[in-house]
Amino acid sequence: MYFHEAETLERGKLEELQVQRLKKTIEQAANSPYYSEVFKKNSIDPSVIKTADDITKLPFTTKDDLRSQYPYGLLTQPLDNFVRLHASSGTTGTPTAILYTQKDLDTWADLMARSMYSVGLRKSDIFQNMSGYGLFTGGLGIHYGAERLGCLTVPAGAGNTKRQIKLIRDFNVTGLHIIPSFALYFAAKVREEGFDPAEMPWKVALIGAEPHTEHTRRKIEELMHIKAYNSYGLSEMNGPGVAFECLEQNGMHVWEDSYIAEIINPETGEHVADGEVGELVMTTLTREGMPIIRYRTRDLTRFIPGECKCGRTSRRIDRIMGRADDMLILKGVNIYPMQIEKIIMGIPEVGQNYLIELIKEGLMDQIRVKVEIKEEYFIEDMRALQGIQKKIAGMLRDEILITPRVELVQHNSIPKSEGKAVRVVDLRDEE
Amino acid sequence: MYFHEAETLERGKLEELQVQRLKKTIEQAANSPYYSEVFKKNSIDPSVIKTADDITKLPFTTKDDLRSQYPYGLLTQPLDNFVRLHASSGTTGTPTAILYTQKDLDTWADLMARSMYSVGLRKSDIFQNMSGYGLFTGGLGIHYGAERLGCLTVPAGAGNTKRQIKLIRDFNVTGLHIIPSFALYFAAKVREEGFDPAEMPWKVALIGAEPHTEHTRRKIEELMHIKAYNSYGLSEMNGPGVAFECLEQNGMHVWEDSYIAEIINPETGEHVADGEVGELVMTTLTREGMPIIRYRTRDLTRFIPGECKCGRTSRRIDRIMGRADDMLILKGVNIYPMQIEKIIMGIPEVGQNYLIELIKEGLMDQIRVKVEIKEEYFIEDMRALQGIQKKIAGMLRDEILITPRVELVQHNSIPKSEGKAVRVVDLRDEE
Repeated sequence: MYFHEAETLERGKLEELQVQRLKKTIEQAANSPYYSEVFKKNSIDPSVIKTADDITKLPFTTKDDLRSQYPYGLLTQPLDNFVRLHASSGTTGTPTAILYTQKDLDTWADLMARSMYSVGLRKSDIFQNMSGYGLFTGGLGIHYGAERLGCLTVPAGAGNTKRQIKLIRDFNVTGLHIIPSFALYFAAKVREEGFDPAEMPWKVALIGAEPHTEHTRRKIEELMHIKAYNSYGLSEMNGPGVAFECLEQNGMHVWEDSYIAEIINPETGEHVADGEVGELVMTTLTREGMPIIRYRTRDLTRFIPGECKCGRTSRRIDRIMGRADDMLILKGVNIYPMQIEKIIMGIPEVGQNYLIELIKEGLMDQIRVKVEIKEEYFIEDMRALQGIQKKIAGMLRDEILITPRVELVQHNSIPKSEGKAVRVVDLRDEE
Repeated sequence: MYFHEAETLERGKLEELQVQRLKKTIEQAANSPYYSEVFKKNSIDPSVIKTADDITKLPFTTKDDLRSQYPYGLLTQPLDNFVRLHASSGTTGTPTAILYTQKDLDTWADLMARSMYSVGLRKSDIFQNMSGYGLFTGGLGIHYGAERLGCLTVPAGAGNTKRQIKLIRDFNVTGLHIIPSFALYFAAKVREEGFDPAEMPWKVALIGAEPHTEHTRRKIEELMHIKAYNSYGLSEMNGPGVAFECLEQNGMHVWEDSYIAEIINPETGEHVADGEVGELVMTTLTREGMPIIRYRTRDLTRFIPGECKCGRTSRRIDRIMGRADDMLILKGVNIYPMQIEKIIMGIPEVGQNYLIELIKEGLMDQIRVKVEIKEEYFIEDMRALQGIQKKIAGMLRDEILITPRVELVQHNSIPKSEGKAVRVVDLRDEE
């Protein structure tokens, strides 16, 4: 029932493996211009690592470090040895680029295949990859994993909904990779085309690449008649296949033979208590070309305490609860868009979409939340609507500690994107 | 100087290899529902093949055959053995789908790597793949070839011109895969961003996926300061990597150890004389999962007589001169859009873009050709413009035998697509 023996390694053995690989990673990283200097400055060499906890003796690596080292500063080998490059969009400044040797690509494909296996996908499955390809690691990362697993892989990419539906039906596609916000749109499209999602051949959806709530997952499962599994990955750690849910759907197993995960207090840099929320920090253990040590992901999550029923021994992280960078500060309060989504999607009258707008009221910043209401509730009874509006505002105030403006809008009135959903719009300069 | 020994095999030896592989292909194809029946009906088995010429004893396979056999009729193995699917868009009817085993993908990647090697690309090159990925074979086909060759491969995909330019500059990209019509647009974009194409690091561009003239190639080379190489491929024969130019830029070498190419008179089905234009017919020799025999490509070309200076012994095909399916019939005359492009792009006053419109004049069909004129010619002197217009119309009449309407338009006034260019628009129902 497991793809790789590392999945069920006894914790002591797993930590031995981590120590051994961390030492090797330090040795390899020392060949890069960046870490060579950092290690020299901090007197670091493989011998400082005796136990897995000794990782705290190593300095953090931040997104800014990656930017300042762009393009070659973290490479441990001549450029000639690399065969793949992925890059962030870099719309907000210098991009970051991750480079892979052939061995790194093989390792990544294996981890991704293992991830897919853990949610029940097998060689006999037909797998449609519905995410965009290109520089985004979610496309090629999942693609190579599916082929490695031996699935018949359909590189459908994003968009072209009708053809996607046709291929799914014609080839009895059993597995999908789909972005959560697109999944909701896609379910509606399937119905529009005259098909019942319950009669589609699909069984398993991988939904990653976009933070989403448990409610969104359940909604996807319900609307598509599919089992949806959450995954975690980021290009700095290869891409998808870093942590993945198992059939239990209760947290994502970090593949700890390939990564060391830590959760820290973002202010102090210290480890938080088991089960407490903090910033995820990740270290590669099996990347030769461009190892990254103690990377500050800015993603907020927690370790889920206890053992998983699936038998895997690796620790699980909870779904990502927001990004430190996405944080909105309003009237002195820190607000994560995910907090708003979590509340809204739990309200039965709410439809499939919402939008958070930052606006100016006089000189003050304010949040306006546009919420789509299901058709059956969007009736002429103003009093009922006002009641819903008030309820939503109240529940949001309880969660985010300020009272936002809530605007109820009709079903399908918020534009849907075929790609990653835009959930927050800043209108403060426009109103 | 060669990637594979098959490239310089003595012709006799090459034909021996073809015979042996064709026999094996027949044996494998007989395991598919479709060919099993076709072979039974025509009493075909491997023993009918004694020499390479005996391929004419085998029946043709057409696009309609592939459509009628969609989705599984041509598979020689259980679906479980396949790991990749590519499909045509199917906008005009049932799609066609090509399925690949892992071995087929490996063979394809090798052929593609060989193709790239033949135009001077090496492991040390940095290669940016600027075509869309997904179900289109041009994206993943070139991608896997570049990685197989060992190039640092940048899966940039289509669009996002600014980021493409940034990556090319930051990583000293030396090789590109770019669609011809996009290349012309891209050259202009590079200048717009303030860079001189002559100072870009690139050296080699693969330009396929779209029929184009020698003039277009020379224009790309001149505007981009790059060497541009033509390639031929189609998804039915895997995708790109079927025939490829060498450094001589004089015809595309068919990789005859993997494909048998024939050129026939599309009316009679007989081979045309050496050097004569006809329809290209292709047979796979190294595809195990879904072999296709004597596929009518509908592409018009000719064998280039004589030997190539590069030392490769495989026959060369000329650039594609049109598709039988693209043929416009106007006033009883067969017209290929490529004939029009060839003329237009040879006229010095013409800018970078043109558009062929099918219109109604009264009850008659007519062609209107919109032609962008270089800024320096688009002056207020009506008489000079009329002269250019008349010249173009005359030259087109000499080529296509009817006199089209010619409309001169300003530089950059015809919308450019970031993907495949739309060259013919049918407005007959609208005017």
